[in-house]
Parts: sequence; C-alpha cells; structure tokens
Amino acid sequence: MKKDEYWMKFAIIEAEKAFEKGEIPVGAVIVKDGKIIGRGCNLRETLKDPTAHAEIIAITSAAQTVQDWRLDDSTLYVTLEPCPMCAGAILNARIRRLVFGAYDEKYGACSSLDNILDGRYLNHKVIVKGGVLKDKSEYLLRQFFEILRRNGN
Amino acid sequence: MKKDEYWMKFAIIEAEKAFEKGEIPVGAVIVKDGKIIGRGCNLRETLKDPTAHAEIIAITSAAQTVQDWRLDDSTLYVTLEPCPMCAGAILNARIRRLVFGAYDEKYGACSSLDNILDGRYLNHKVIVKGGVLKDKSEYLLRQFFEILRRNGN
Repeated sequence: MKKDEYWMKFAIIEAEKAFEKGEIPVGAVIVKDGKIIGRGCNLRETLKDPTAHAEIIAITSAAQTVQDWRLDDSTLYVTLEPCPMCAGAILNARIRRLVFGAYDEKYGACSSLDNILDGRYLNHKVIVKGGVLKDKSEYLLRQFFEILRRNGN
Repeated sequence: MKKDEYWMKFAIIEAEKAFEKGEIPVGAVIVKDGKIIGRGCNLRETLKDPTAHAEIIAITSAAQTVQDWRLDDSTLYVTLEPCPMCAGAILNARIRRLVFGAYDEKYGACSSLDNILDGRYLNHKVIVKGGVLKDKSEYLLRQFFEILRRNGN
C-alpha cells in the first residue's frame, strides 16, 4: 500500500533525528484520520531513560494531542519492529494497526521472536504489517553501528 | 522473605496514592543497595497517558536517580503483576529481580498468561516472585472497583 510508504517516510525522518543525536536510529509517528497526531525518536541515551523508545514517546505525544489515553483507530508507523515494552504500549493504547520497517530478529515482539499483538492479551488484536521501506531503516541502523565500531565502542 | 514484605509496603503506599486520585490502585518502588531509588503510582487517567503505569514511572524516576538507563542489581516491587509493556520495560532497564503482589489473570505477563522475563528476550532473565502481601493489594483493587460499580461506571 502506497499510503503506508508515505507515512513511513515521516517515521524515517524521526529516525534520522535520533541518528544525529548519537542514538540508535529508530523513529515513529502515529496517524489518525489522515493526520500525524504524535511523533518520537529513540532518546534512551539523551534522557538516560530505558523507556524512552521512539514508540513510547510517540504514544505519549499522541495521547496529549487527543487528550485521551485511548488511541483507537490510529496506526503506529515505526522504522524497527517493536520490542516487548513497545508492543505492550501499543496494546495499552488500543492502537488498531502497526506498520514497521526493519525486522528485529533479536528483540522483535511483533513477528520475529513472538507476536504479543495476536489477541492473547486484553482480547485486543492489532493488525501488523512489517517490512515497509525496510531497506532505508536497515541502512540507517547499519550506518549507525558501523560508526560505533569505527569509534571503538 | 521478610525483606520483600518490608519493601512491598512502600509499593502499597504508592498504590494508595493512586487510589486517592481515582486511579486503578497500583504502586511500585525500585530498591538498590538497600535504598529506594525510584517510585511511582498508576497515573493513566490523571496524565491521560496509556504508558503512565506505576512501573514505568518508577523506572524512569530510578534512572534519573542513578543517571543511567541501566538499573542492574536492582529489584522492582509492584503491587500487581506487570502487563506486557511493564514487563518489557523491566527487561529494557536490565532489572535483576521482580517482586509483585496480586496476580493479574487477565493481563499479567510475568506468570499468569505468560512470563516474558524467562530469558527468551535479550538473553536477560529476571528472577520473579509473586504473591507478596497480595491480600492487601487485592483488597485495594477490589475496593476501587466496588466504588466504581456503586457510582455506575
């Protein structure tokens, strides 16, 4: 679906912001009724906060926009497959659809290692689509880790 | 272990704060080297934020205290079994041990429906102990939902 690629590009812009800050480059946006209502990038090191993943920041910002913790009928776009925490936050926010870019074979909880969005929790099933513009997201991540290695980290 | 009951009482004090604010009464504290380094209570309605669970607030506050997103060698005490989001946050923070009070048969991700802390993610296994002072935590939750019903919600 071309529409998903369109919105994913905005998530990639968020990932690039993380990259520029020296953070693992992951970005997310939340779309409802054809508008972005929340956005965020990974800020774990900057904020020294293990919960400061792109999705959590985007969800909190979207909830502030709509002044409700329920984000029904919205879609979350994120450049990397969500971890268990972020998948759980998607459930808690009652988000309807998740579209992600790169697969995370080591920590992905929406397809790779497990899919905790399959309806086993809260009777809430989230529609999941992976791999959207994944080359661009993977390229950013690869570039980031290459720079880290070059700097001896 | 008496020590676990001692710290759980502080988590219950946090849960009582949530109760007084009209929030589902869940509270958490994080203990490291015999000191509380973070605390939090559920503030989902107050903050209109689906991520504002007691554990997330406690983890963020503990990370601010130690100025590091890694909370190794700490124990999280929470009055209710964590949901998938909070269990994932425990993994992300590298917390070593989880002690919870009441079991959550509908949404618990650390024992009841699943245990995502069993080492399948990140190769990080968290020691889990449930049921500590659970009567008090259950009593608070029951009282809360009875008041809700009485008020016709």
